[in-house]
Amino acid sequence: MKYEPLAQKDVFQSMVAARPMHRKEYGKLATHLRADLLEAQRALKATKQSLIVTIGGLDGAGKGEVIQLLTEWMDPRDLDTYSFWDMPTDTEDRPYHWRYWQSLPKRGRIAIWFGGMYTDPIEREVNGARESGWLAEVSREICFFEEMLRKDGTFQAKIWMHLTKTAQHRRLKGLYENPQQHWRAMDNDWKNHNLHDQFTAAAGELIHHTDTHCAPWNIVDASDRKWRNVTVGRLMHTAIKAAIEPCLAIETKKITRTEVHQKKIHYLADVKLDQRMEKNSYEQALITWQGKLHRLFWEAYDRNISTVLAFEGWDAAGKGSAIKRVTAAIDARLYRIVCVGIPTTEANNYHYLWRFWQPLPRAGRITIFDRSWYGRVLVERIEQLASKEEWTRAYAEIKEFEKHLVDHDTVICKFWLHISREKQMERFKNRLKTPYKRHKITEEDWRNREKWTQYESAVNDMIHHTNTPYAPWTIVAGNNKKFARIQILQSICSKLETALGGESGDH
Amino acid sequence: MKYEPLAQKDVFQSMVAARPMHRKEYGKLATHLRADLLEAQRALKATKQSLIVTIGGLDGAGKGEVIQLLTEWMDPRDLDTYSFWDMPTDTEDRPYHWRYWQSLPKRGRIAIWFGGMYTDPIEREVNGARESGWLAEVSREICFFEEMLRKDGTFQAKIWMHLTKTAQHRRLKGLYENPQQHWRAMDNDWKNHNLHDQFTAAAGELIHHTDTHCAPWNIVDASDRKWRNVTVGRLMHTAIKAAIEPCLAIETKKITRTEVHQKKIHYLADVKLDQRMEKNSYEQALITWQGKLHRLFWEAYDRNISTVLAFEGWDAAGKGSAIKRVTAAIDARLYRIVCVGIPTTEANNYHYLWRFWQPLPRAGRITIFDRSWYGRVLVERIEQLASKEEWTRAYAEIKEFEKHLVDHDTVICKFWLHISREKQMERFKNRLKTPYKRHKITEEDWRNREKWTQYESAVNDMIHHTNTPYAPWTIVAGNNKKFARIQILQSICSKLETALGGESGDH
Repeated sequence: MKYEPLAQKDVFQSMVAARPMHRKEYGKLATHLRADLLEAQRALKATKQSLIVTIGGLDGAGKGEVIQLLTEWMDPRDLDTYSFWDMPTDTEDRPYHWRYWQSLPKRGRIAIWFGGMYTDPIEREVNGARESGWLAEVSREICFFEEMLRKDGTFQAKIWMHLTKTAQHRRLKGLYENPQQHWRAMDNDWKNHNLHDQFTAAAGELIHHTDTHCAPWNIVDASDRKWRNVTVGRLMHTAIKAAIEPCLAIETKKITRTEVHQKKIHYLADVKLDQRMEKNSYEQALITWQGKLHRLFWEAYDRNISTVLAFEGWDAAGKGSAIKRVTAAIDARLYRIVCVGIPTTEANNYHYLWRFWQPLPRAGRITIFDRSWYGRVLVERIEQLASKEEWTRAYAEIKEFEKHLVDHDTVICKFWLHISREKQMERFKNRLKTPYKRHKITEEDWRNREKWTQYESAVNDMIHHTNTPYAPWTIVAGNNKKFARIQILQSICSKLETALGGESGDH
Repeated sequence: MKYEPLAQKDVFQSMVAARPMHRKEYGKLATHLRADLLEAQRALKATKQSLIVTIGGLDGAGKGEVIQLLTEWMDPRDLDTYSFWDMPTDTEDRPYHWRYWQSLPKRGRIAIWFGGMYTDPIEREVNGARESGWLAEVSREICFFEEMLRKDGTFQAKIWMHLTKTAQHRRLKGLYENPQQHWRAMDNDWKNHNLHDQFTAAAGELIHHTDTHCAPWNIVDASDRKWRNVTVGRLMHTAIKAAIEPCLAIETKKITRTEVHQKKIHYLADVKLDQRMEKNSYEQALITWQGKLHRLFWEAYDRNISTVLAFEGWDAAGKGSAIKRVTAAIDARLYRIVCVGIPTTEANNYHYLWRFWQPLPRAGRITIFDRSWYGRVLVERIEQLASKEEWTRAYAEIKEFEKHLVDHDTVICKFWLHISREKQMERFKNRLKTPYKRHKITEEDWRNREKWTQYESAVNDMIHHTNTPYAPWTIVAGNNKKFARIQILQSICSKLETALGGESGDH
């Protein structure tokens, strides 16, 4: 299937017109299609790829009917249907894309998305005047998301079922006049029918912007039921086949090694590791900043502002004990700690960011990540658990992820706890001496220590590529734990104060 | 540790009084405790048991502080903390116990429950006059839940941190007067202090009712911080040790084989399998009942009434096609189909009912189970995947589960699709002839067919034990698929009409 993007004007005009189909012909085609779909579905199951099929379209085009039919024709055990309508507060509380991350298909499976990422922007565009450029920004986010998934092996097909205004009127009238189908024509459908031109314009613009190689659109004339069903069924079959076939590499702009080297700054080399704090002033400062943090987090709770704290750092840099000084100041009902280790079998079924989206905080809450999504460009890079292609593109994916959080008014603090190599050795030795700390030292820690230089370089790259204005890194001078803890508490307080408008006074 | 249940009056009087502890003694005890806790935690991890520790207590007793401390002393990677406060609509929408099922520890892990199942009933008892017997019924439900988990290998320890009225006053005053601890004494705490006697009475009664062998209570004097911390830490250690040791069997009233046989009725033998429906009247009836069902489900949506449909039946009885006739009548955004197969690795980490609680519908929605929790007393019984002990107690557990749904105003319809053995053979042969149905026949189907008589007996027992007035079985005469489908549609309509108050007229 040769792919040619749809030109803006042609979005609906290039649509192939439906042709009436005889009952017998339909029956015969459907029988074959069912066998083909089931076979393709079984073949997909054996692969590591997955597929999202978005079914969009105007009211009366029969989105629900077609989805029913597809679940009837296919094996429902390997197929999940998701709609994004009337979401619970649990979803509304999270960054907007959270709902889509919760609805991804596992590898080998198919997800049908009822309206997908498109219904909501189209309705918002029709119902309220948005700022100019709004739809373009939404489209950019969607394209980024779709391309990211595609590179990870999640294929996508998008089907728009179209009706001209006349055809829509005919359909709704037909349903309305048949007492037994009456219920299929809802009040809202009639209301939207009057806005047919606006809906078509908004849909056309969005489709034009999001018709990419990664996730192309298909426009289907929905004016004839049998034609529509067979056409959508065939598109589904083509989409599954495309997902099964050996992946064609997607072209991406590569960051070449030279580029990285040219720009490289030695962030870690600049850290003043000799900064320290004495016991007395530390204890006083701890109480002051913890009290302040406590109040700020309650205020953030009252104002539905969420916080994400990500802690990265060398082994024995004091992440755990620093986190404890932070949590000591937060009501136990407000926060959650997520310890990030090797991905589970479950997590490996999805894009690597999936497991970080899932525990994002509800409105007003705090999620603390003890190690984070940056594992992709640190341990996974160095241990070659991710290919160069994968960890290189992760920088942009992470920036986009964090942008979604910030757009949702989430406060992000990212800490790299830095210590010198000598300090690490000193702490390793100390841990071996204390009974309840001994379990903290494993062979892996010693192995990681051997790779200090490699990690140093990876950390520099990481900071370089992800130190954005909206989510900057804080590099913590960790040789003195007391100094480090207060630096962290202060930094969180300062970010929260800015987010809350700075009116929160100290005392 | 010999266990003696707490007498109602003695609940708090028998409490061992705190003794002041010197800083040095505390430090030494804490160091040992930490090592013990970590060791016990690691040993638990290697077992198939899990542990829930509930931390309850009056305001100012330091629940939050103690939970902080425990996560500090223990390995936070194998420990999860849950609170049940300010729940999102996603939770409020579901049967009350849903929140607890979502907070269970995996095998080998520990969950700390902040207030657990106790805070809410105590507050409700204090804040509003409840019907007499209310607290007793809540207690019965809690005891059932705790015993059920215990039998499945989830141990439980419950700690109540107590303060006399004088001690509570002293604690709140102390916090309030210290500018740096000021934030620890919340307005609400002072309000509740005035209700100290009422809180103590309600807590005392609830503790008295729920102090069982399966999940005993421990009362801790919280008037001295160091004593309290050490005591709670030790109780935690004892609880983990108890969970590690080889399980002592819990005595339960066994349903003896004779008992079952005496009562046995041949439910399936009574089904009139020759009932049929002709094509013309079927097509008319299908449209009528689907239209009616569509309206009823929208009405249920408007009124926040959820529905659970469970389909069980012989292989080739027509479950799949019957479900399709039901879903054809429901808006695709309102329902979800759950196909129940062999439990996944994830599901095996929990009580077998866990995977059925998770997908329960939100308010106003519908979940359709294609096979269900009854697998426990059917396939798992016959294939010996569950021990006799396990499937025998499942009857009561299932009845309790369904009672929770009904108490939450969920409509439950349970269908057994019955066919004759000859009809099954006829359908197996037909399936082999149709290309898109061939995949439906597997070797397992033939094996199951060999065990017809065993299944027949298991189905009779199942219906006998779980055919409750609040969730009765509908046995569907399935030899004629058309008749069966209309019987199912009518049955759901009738249950919904009753739930909606019967005012919904037919047309």
